[in-house]
Amino acid sequence: MRDLLIEGGSLIVPGSRPGTVAVAAGDLAIRDGIILSVAGRGDLPGDWDPSIIEASGRYVMPGLVNAHGHAAMALLRGYADDLPLEEWLEDRIWPIEDGMEGSDVEAGTSLAVAEMLLGGTTCFADMYFPMHRVAGVCSEMGIRAVLSQGLIGIDADVDRDMDYSRRFAEEWHGARGGRIRVQLGPHAPYTCPPDYLEAVVALAGELGLGIHTHLAETAGEVETIRSRYGKSPAEYFRDAGIFSVGPVTVAHAVHVDRDDLEILAADGVGVAHCPRSNLRLACGIAPTVDILEAGIPVGLGTDGPASSATLDMWEEMRFAGYLQKGIRADARALPAEELLYMATRGGAVALGLEDVGELRPGFRADVIVVNPDRPHMVPGHDVLSSLAYCAGPGDVELVLVEGRPLVRRGHLLAADLEEIVERARRVAVSLTERVEES
Amino acid sequence: MRDLLIEGGSLIVPGSRPGTVAVAAGDLAIRDGIILSVAGRGDLPGDWDPSIIEASGRYVMPGLVNAHGHAAMALLRGYADDLPLEEWLEDRIWPIEDGMEGSDVEAGTSLAVAEMLLGGTTCFADMYFPMHRVAGVCSEMGIRAVLSQGLIGIDADVDRDMDYSRRFAEEWHGARGGRIRVQLGPHAPYTCPPDYLEAVVALAGELGLGIHTHLAETAGEVETIRSRYGKSPAEYFRDAGIFSVGPVTVAHAVHVDRDDLEILAADGVGVAHCPRSNLRLACGIAPTVDILEAGIPVGLGTDGPASSATLDMWEEMRFAGYLQKGIRADARALPAEELLYMATRGGAVALGLEDVGELRPGFRADVIVVNPDRPHMVPGHDVLSSLAYCAGPGDVELVLVEGRPLVRRGHLLAADLEEIVERARRVAVSLTERVEES
Repeated sequence: MRDLLIEGGSLIVPGSRPGTVAVAAGDLAIRDGIILSVAGRGDLPGDWDPSIIEASGRYVMPGLVNAHGHAAMALLRGYADDLPLEEWLEDRIWPIEDGMEGSDVEAGTSLAVAEMLLGGTTCFADMYFPMHRVAGVCSEMGIRAVLSQGLIGIDADVDRDMDYSRRFAEEWHGARGGRIRVQLGPHAPYTCPPDYLEAVVALAGELGLGIHTHLAETAGEVETIRSRYGKSPAEYFRDAGIFSVGPVTVAHAVHVDRDDLEILAADGVGVAHCPRSNLRLACGIAPTVDILEAGIPVGLGTDGPASSATLDMWEEMRFAGYLQKGIRADARALPAEELLYMATRGGAVALGLEDVGELRPGFRADVIVVNPDRPHMVPGHDVLSSLAYCAGPGDVELVLVEGRPLVRRGHLLAADLEEIVERARRVAVSLTERVEES
Repeated sequence: MRDLLIEGGSLIVPGSRPGTVAVAAGDLAIRDGIILSVAGRGDLPGDWDPSIIEASGRYVMPGLVNAHGHAAMALLRGYADDLPLEEWLEDRIWPIEDGMEGSDVEAGTSLAVAEMLLGGTTCFADMYFPMHRVAGVCSEMGIRAVLSQGLIGIDADVDRDMDYSRRFAEEWHGARGGRIRVQLGPHAPYTCPPDYLEAVVALAGELGLGIHTHLAETAGEVETIRSRYGKSPAEYFRDAGIFSVGPVTVAHAVHVDRDDLEILAADGVGVAHCPRSNLRLACGIAPTVDILEAGIPVGLGTDGPASSATLDMWEEMRFAGYLQKGIRADARALPAEELLYMATRGGAVALGLEDVGELRPGFRADVIVVNPDRPHMVPGHDVLSSLAYCAGPGDVELVLVEGRPLVRRGHLLAADLEEIVERARRVAVSLTERVEES
């Protein structure tokens, strides 16, 4: 039995309106990695005997959930910027990725996980390859993860892909007490032809897995799919059965119309909204408020650090919020209480995680404590405003995943940070050399 | 004689293309607060005898220039959010500002200056009231400042306003060896009728002062000015002679057309671009690339922390860059080398500061050193990309203004941070109580 009491902070709890959070003063009680009681709601057992974490004057909230990304691309951060998506991907990213080996993916993922934990992200969704390397890192570093092997269905060896995905899921889905989950990862409508999707849907049904994919990221994608199949990307995926399996998460959803939103809503598909990546790669601005109003679960994703540069979910929140206010000419759009929900429980729902992302009895104790004393957080008229609009990665003091401290006083406990940084630099140099030689 | 050598870093120097920066390896030599040589360019005197600051592996760049804001409003940060500009201003901000006294303004400015210095901002433009209180704080804390008393010309006592501005300018313009400068601050086209502007222009001419103002922030302002005067805000100001005085800086310039840009360009008016504030208050998105292409000097401003929440110029850079990429559907728009220029020399030019904002022999030694070792800055393929897209306030290690260290190892030397934070909190509580009682 491991009992933990986080005492005296301002707790960020579920709001009375769905899709929002609110503030409650009080304590947070945790046993064996599960939340027992929140600000007096929930029962403490007779043999309750906690270690105390003093949080008086601090903000205590669910860990951030990064609902979409490609963590190992942290190695490529800053390698190619200020380029259009296709040129960026085809001329710069793919050639250097070609030289990446399993151990490089490990190095990049470790760097990304270190950055995420230090900044208060306790759960992330990742699509990359080969994913057993990513799973190994997550297993060791203690972060929660929803992992999908990226499946490109053009000129693909279907048997090999499905075989890898099956073995990966069998080994890792539900591993580490459920801390690691697996989704199948058909990359995108334009990289997965119908027969390939058919094999993916069959395997998902057989193994009871959800799907992680990209959808309607660019206007070009919508055109391509329309000209190939006479359908929108959402219609194409629905008709292929992709939305009929377990929890489905689509990243981006930038170029979606009313009909597409109806499809996503009807099938309970979750959206990972990646506003920084979408702007930076000049893909556009997703109609986030419309997506929410359609009843679709929305989380926030940073996308890969080669496109969004950092894994800073705080900045991602501000981009999400300010953009919608600006383009809708409505300062009330996406207020602080909705942004904070989106960055926590919203992401968990979009990823199909039933007991993650809220401070609620029975939920996993993925919790962060934020320091409100740095000048940019002062005076602190409103806790939610301070968190959504002022806080940054450097304000996160303590990070727990299932009650286990992975960051304390802003220092990474989960791994040797210096070693991770040095290894990532070494690998980045050797990748650059490899691509220049080839 | 005080000689200082910053040794072995990656220096951010003027780029070969105007309006950009570039990277050079080498040392930076400073004497008595003035840059002597940069990466071997510039001469060292015979009696050169420097203290050494080791910066090997670090990034050394000009301090950030925050070209527009209302620093004391740090006290109101988080007091009113997610509201449209007019409701926000008239129902929430003005009533609480009514209760603000000189000592409160001091408390708020100290908080803001602490935040700015810690985040690498070495110079800021400020419009507030009463400005001698702000000047006192800047004088003491060592930051560079361009200060303007906000002048509202509706139901105004013109003599009193001009009298205050005259005395303020006489006392502070060029004070502290030129570290503090004064501009006249007619608030905006919609708050300054023609006869009031006439008095401002006369005083500016007499005292040789520049102007700081707001221009074309909202579509409503443009409509108002058109219906009152049959002109655009830029035409109205030009015709009133506002643009014919010394350096003129206009904040926002969101709703400007080609004709307006021609006017600003012809009169050498600088623009302080405040993308976060403009989005957050649902004012819109300025055509920043068009403004630059018209040949207008553009700097970045955070606006007041009650509208933009923080004084984080790094985040402001990313909003500026990513927004233009996104709305222009052009990933090449505002690349890293232009953003970094805008956040440094661009702001200085827009404020009329001839020897600030670049690492260049003869310029003021306003310099910051950035730590590239936190995971979000790694691996560091490209120094400019790391600075523009990954760095944040927490990465700033050393801050010099005219060679004087104000931040070292991330700690504020310029003042007692704890005292500033406590005082700001105390004042914020008492302001809230005052407005609730009234």
